[in-house]
Amino acid sequence: MSLYKRQEISKKRQTKVIDLRSDTVTQPDLPMRQAMFDAEVGDDGYGEDPTVNLLEEKTAKLFGKEAAVFLPSGLMGNLIAMMVHAKQRGGEVIVGSKSHILLWEQGGASQIAGLQLREVRNMADGTFDMAEFLEKLRPEGPDPHEPYTTLVCVENTHNYCGGTILPIEWIDQLGKFVKERNIPLHMDGARVFNASVGLGIPVERIARHCDSVSFCLSKGLGAPVGSILTGNKSFIEKARRARKVLGGSMRQSGIVAAAGLYALDHCVDRLADDHRNAKKIASAIKEIGSPCVTVDLDALETNILLVNVNLSGMNAGDLSSKLLQVDYDDDDDDRSRLTAVRIVQINDTSLRMVLHKDITDEDVDLAIGKIKYVVGKIDAHNG
Amino acid sequence: MSLYKRQEISKKRQTKVIDLRSDTVTQPDLPMRQAMFDAEVGDDGYGEDPTVNLLEEKTAKLFGKEAAVFLPSGLMGNLIAMMVHAKQRGGEVIVGSKSHILLWEQGGASQIAGLQLREVRNMADGTFDMAEFLEKLRPEGPDPHEPYTTLVCVENTHNYCGGTILPIEWIDQLGKFVKERNIPLHMDGARVFNASVGLGIPVERIARHCDSVSFCLSKGLGAPVGSILTGNKSFIEKARRARKVLGGSMRQSGIVAAAGLYALDHCVDRLADDHRNAKKIASAIKEIGSPCVTVDLDALETNILLVNVNLSGMNAGDLSSKLLQVDYDDDDDDRSRLTAVRIVQINDTSLRMVLHKDITDEDVDLAIGKIKYVVGKIDAHNG
Amino acid sequence: MSLYKRQEISKKRQTKVIDLRSDTVTQPDLPMRQAMFDAEVGDDGYGEDPTVNLLEEKTAKLFGKEAAVFLPSGLMGNLIAMMVHAKQRGGEVIVGSKSHILLWEQGGASQIAGLQLREVRNMADGTFDMAEFLEKLRPEGPDPHEPYTTLVCVENTHNYCGGTILPIEWIDQLGKFVKERNIPLHMDGARVFNASVGLGIPVERIARHCDSVSFCLSKGLGAPVGSILTGNKSFIEKARRARKVLGGSMRQSGIVAAAGLYALDHCVDRLADDHRNAKKIASAIKEIGSPCVTVDLDALETNILLVNVNLSGMNAGDLSSKLLQVDYDDDDDDRSRLTAVRIVQINDTSLRMVLHKDITDEDVDLAIGKIKYVVGKIDAHNG
Amino acid sequence: MSLYKRQEISKKRQTKVIDLRSDTVTQPDLPMRQAMFDAEVGDDGYGEDPTVNLLEEKTAKLFGKEAAVFLPSGLMGNLIAMMVHAKQRGGEVIVGSKSHILLWEQGGASQIAGLQLREVRNMADGTFDMAEFLEKLRPEGPDPHEPYTTLVCVENTHNYCGGTILPIEWIDQLGKFVKERNIPLHMDGARVFNASVGLGIPVERIARHCDSVSFCLSKGLGAPVGSILTGNKSFIEKARRARKVLGGSMRQSGIVAAAGLYALDHCVDRLADDHRNAKKIASAIKEIGSPCVTVDLDALETNILLVNVNLSGMNAGDLSSKLLQVDYDDDDDDRSRLTAVRIVQINDTSLRMVLHKDITDEDVDLAIGKIKYVVGKIDAHNG
Repeated sequence: MSLYKRQEISKKRQTKVIDLRSDTVTQPDLPMRQAMFDAEVGDDGYGEDPTVNLLEEKTAKLFGKEAAVFLPSGLMGNLIAMMVHAKQRGGEVIVGSKSHILLWEQGGASQIAGLQLREVRNMADGTFDMAEFLEKLRPEGPDPHEPYTTLVCVENTHNYCGGTILPIEWIDQLGKFVKERNIPLHMDGARVFNASVGLGIPVERIARHCDSVSFCLSKGLGAPVGSILTGNKSFIEKARRARKVLGGSMRQSGIVAAAGLYALDHCVDRLADDHRNAKKIASAIKEIGSPCVTVDLDALETNILLVNVNLSGMNAGDLSSKLLQVDYDDDDDDRSRLTAVRIVQINDTSLRMVLHKDITDEDVDLAIGKIKYVVGKIDAHNG
Repeated sequence: MSLYKRQEISKKRQTKVIDLRSDTVTQPDLPMRQAMFDAEVGDDGYGEDPTVNLLEEKTAKLFGKEAAVFLPSGLMGNLIAMMVHAKQRGGEVIVGSKSHILLWEQGGASQIAGLQLREVRNMADGTFDMAEFLEKLRPEGPDPHEPYTTLVCVENTHNYCGGTILPIEWIDQLGKFVKERNIPLHMDGARVFNASVGLGIPVERIARHCDSVSFCLSKGLGAPVGSILTGNKSFIEKARRARKVLGGSMRQSGIVAAAGLYALDHCVDRLADDHRNAKKIASAIKEIGSPCVTVDLDALETNILLVNVNLSGMNAGDLSSKLLQVDYDDDDDDRSRLTAVRIVQINDTSLRMVLHKDITDEDVDLAIGKIKYVVGKIDAHNG
Repeated sequence: MSLYKRQEISKKRQTKVIDLRSDTVTQPDLPMRQAMFDAEVGDDGYGEDPTVNLLEEKTAKLFGKEAAVFLPSGLMGNLIAMMVHAKQRGGEVIVGSKSHILLWEQGGASQIAGLQLREVRNMADGTFDMAEFLEKLRPEGPDPHEPYTTLVCVENTHNYCGGTILPIEWIDQLGKFVKERNIPLHMDGARVFNASVGLGIPVERIARHCDSVSFCLSKGLGAPVGSILTGNKSFIEKARRARKVLGGSMRQSGIVAAAGLYALDHCVDRLADDHRNAKKIASAIKEIGSPCVTVDLDALETNILLVNVNLSGMNAGDLSSKLLQVDYDDDDDDRSRLTAVRIVQINDTSLRMVLHKDITDEDVDLAIGKIKYVVGKIDAHNG
Repeated sequence: MSLYKRQEISKKRQTKVIDLRSDTVTQPDLPMRQAMFDAEVGDDGYGEDPTVNLLEEKTAKLFGKEAAVFLPSGLMGNLIAMMVHAKQRGGEVIVGSKSHILLWEQGGASQIAGLQLREVRNMADGTFDMAEFLEKLRPEGPDPHEPYTTLVCVENTHNYCGGTILPIEWIDQLGKFVKERNIPLHMDGARVFNASVGLGIPVERIARHCDSVSFCLSKGLGAPVGSILTGNKSFIEKARRARKVLGGSMRQSGIVAAAGLYALDHCVDRLADDHRNAKKIASAIKEIGSPCVTVDLDALETNILLVNVNLSGMNAGDLSSKLLQVDYDDDDDDRSRLTAVRIVQINDTSLRMVLHKDITDEDVDLAIGKIKYVVGKIDAHNG
């Protein structure tokens, strides 16, 4: 088809892009923008931003902790938690083998905080292989060859395990176990509100045996900027110092904190919609019955949907490309074919879709349509 | 006076607080808030925030550099510049003895970036004692005892020298000198627009021989959040990596970047008002003719006014307290006595006042009135 | 038995202690001491110690490398290799899950060098699980979330795999594979001469595809102090700088280097005796036929013998204690019962014995006698 | 003169090299070598080297401290002291502007230990400019912008101040002052025995108000290898951990520790000879009465002699070269002209000569002869 004709069609039939790459892509809506417009602000460098202070207090209360600190990113929350908790030179931090801290934070624990990460195999549900955990735990001792375990980190919900929710009993037991050994427990709770909504229990309950929790306002909660780290007073005081040296201390950050407050007030319950939508897409894929493109419906607990791809002569990246590609050759009016679905390739055999507040019911239907169309073609070709 | 009577007076005569602690305390005004409300945003984690991209491009152009990166704070700008430029293990960074990097960034160069800071005496105008500089410069050589000089940092305007502007010829010469030795030059230009307005020349001219410049949107320019680091492409690419590991990468940061764009468009020229107001206050102090409280009018170049205090039986902190204290005992209606002036004590013998956009002409007059009143009382007491 | 009687017996029958904890316990013999006595020395801080220089040149030649540097310990050799090779901030170093670097060097890679260690499962023979290796390898790319793989380290012989020798083809292939990706390969060759003697090929052949090798003079080779790191010229120049900043640069170190030279000339071939002795003890344990205390004869390749312990109501530590304990109650004259055998407990189910030059044929027989005696008693008790 | 003739003369008249570069160049003599030959040793990795243990105990006693640890170098002693004492992230260490730690240890405090060094001007006698010290001291406080002072380091004798001895009262006062503020005091006592001999008081008295002292066995004391760090028990336990991670833990190091023991027993008192010889050379230079080459006899307290050079058209390096150069053109038999004197150039206007045990009375006379000859020629040329 000529470029001209493609452009004509493109004009006539607006291409719809459905962005399922991450829940970080959400746009602040009008009421959230209004909250930012109206925000009362001050210089947080002097601790004088009333909106930031309110957000920090509200968070601490929500999580049953003494204090909290507002940060530009979730990565900084994890990094600071490691800097403050695992404070000794020669400390070792136990993390999951699929954890964000180990895989996607540029080795900051080592690079910036001088700490050795020790990976323990993540089970399918995001918990640890406990035999391996016990073997790798190294309490403080006299042997100078060994770094000590000075921190344990868990991730909830667990991104690379497919948004799984850590069982509350497991966290409780782990928290008690390490407390007896004077080892703190940090929860990378970037999506802890998805866990809370998924389980139907408050975040305070989830965080009960954690010494600190960090979570993101800019993922499912839909705020444009910011994460929060919460814990006891002395921990948060040290965290403020660490925030300063990393360059995370901002000025009239009440502007963005206002969106965070709005999100905590208005955007938590609606996470259930994202979970439902993820289920809807997963069920649709299951229904296709393709031998090549499958999902594990039972493992799906929140807004992250992992899709397994087993294609002859194709990898997950190819499928991802096809979902993004819009086919103008076709004359029929199926809008789903004019829909581009953006998703993330995890590796050669798996893809990730993340549902979020900017994905409407109609978008879900269009995405399902597109997936069926593409998978259908692949199956036909393979069959 | 009874508490009741104080409260009555307080109600009748609203206490006015004039905040001269720093130009970081400015509040975003309505048009700036509107710009944020209207901002088109995207996920900067994927490089897709159009407002952030626009701000970065505009900045690079303004400074005559290839690229720029938006950051949560000026401290992060300096830290990243050091991490990227002075990259070798065993590097040494030359900084001024009164520089913000040395004094007020929690030792991040060493703590986070593993670099040794080497201080060279700052002259009154913010330049270096060049004999000391030449003596302390250590070009790469074979002796393993020595760290090499892998970066030189200057500050412009120079905060702790009293907002002085670095002479353009000095920067040029220094820049050429270090370039010949393959040592990069970074400018901590937190207030470089004050230098630009003060000299009446564009920032591009000031930055010409600097390999990188960082500056703050949230000081005199009045934006709520953010700083920018600018330099060549390969430097900025590495800076983006460093931003990530420090936790400075944000999502829909176009919200606050929009205020930055607005500030660059509308708030640069008005810095001249702050300079004029600083001069006005300084002249008024000079006019008092107090032997104890003096200013160096010739040294005053921008919006930062250092006040020398030489009191018998008092230190600079006491004077600072008196300026803040409101005196209700008095019956007359002099509003300046009901004015609280907040300033910062530098040490036992000096105070700092910083002018900024939220200080109106009327505020300046009130502040002058209050200063005269307090200094007059002190002189009377001392005399 | 009374203390008095025990002392009497102890006097009469001298207790013999056979130290199989490690080959680091060896004592310099008379000719080696004479070599140190006679050593021509100079100030190595100025590069003027002729004996150190000779040792470094000889080593470089032996390993087919351009240069070498003498160090106080093997740990420093590994640490320097990581500091120099994996030089970028945000680098990740792949190591085996049972490697000394990961387990027993106090997290120095992270603590001192700021590098993230990434563990890949060690197979029984000390090689990597290659599927896992390929999955974990992260070549330099644009994603700032990821640290890059900037170094791969192997260990040969592999201590915690039981002194196994890495197959030469595996090292070659791995070396070529990473070279194509511009990733250097370092060999922790603390006991590389055991590999050389075990395979009957020169260390040069083993090191051929390694960018650097470190090895210890103070393990099987029997020198009192020192390790050497070898590689190309530019690498070793940087290594000298790293040695200085770590505090590893010594003065008239020719004294101990002389012992190293003597060891390279006279103590390499005799490592075969240690291998034979390890086999002899292993065969004896196998002969016992105990269901609880077993060895894998096929896996035994050099001087390190792992013993598997599967006791009801006992762990490996208990067995270790019994081997150390001397039993005076008995009246018979079996000298092996008066022998204390010191070994190292690895974990609850395994023990390590290391053969070395100070263990004579007679010691081996005594140790075997003691082991038979203790295991026999355990089996009887369990049976 | 033809090369042949030069060689002929060179053969006939053996050139004598007198090495005054440093007291690190000393050779172990026969009794010291015998002590090493006879040394009883063990594996210090297990704490089982009796000679190392003896040396550590003896040192602790000598310095009036609880414990001590043997190290491969003095640099490591300072580095470990900083790692252990100044343990907090964001710590700042105050050091002298001419201190070895600041100038000649490759920035290890920052590079390895993540600590910011803060320099205070050294007075001529090696003490601090106390006004500057008080201004730069930053006790722990709430402002996150500031690193805290977590350690103060002094150097005694002070190398770059010309081997000056710190006044005992000054150390005492400083030690008490910082103790009140909970800030530890470390003494880089590389040459503290020169201070002890110079003052005629035991090292225990000098170290009384210091929390730790490091000193070198391989400088004036003449041992080939090693330094010791001494302090209280808990400090030394942590120091052992730090030694391990830096790679400074050795095996049968009793060999070199034996030389250290010998040195403590036999080589301390003779340091007085070095001091006398330094005085003798200095007096001879003064006697020359050259306007260009001068010494400050009053400042000369130990074995380090600084020579000031003020030459027209020449710098200190040229003079240093002339002292090294041997002049065969001359026919007369003055042996001092056939003497090469090796010294170190500090900068363009100063040279350093260091006396030590391998410089005999005859060497001193020859060196004086050579200096007179060279300076005489220069004066003649200039005059």
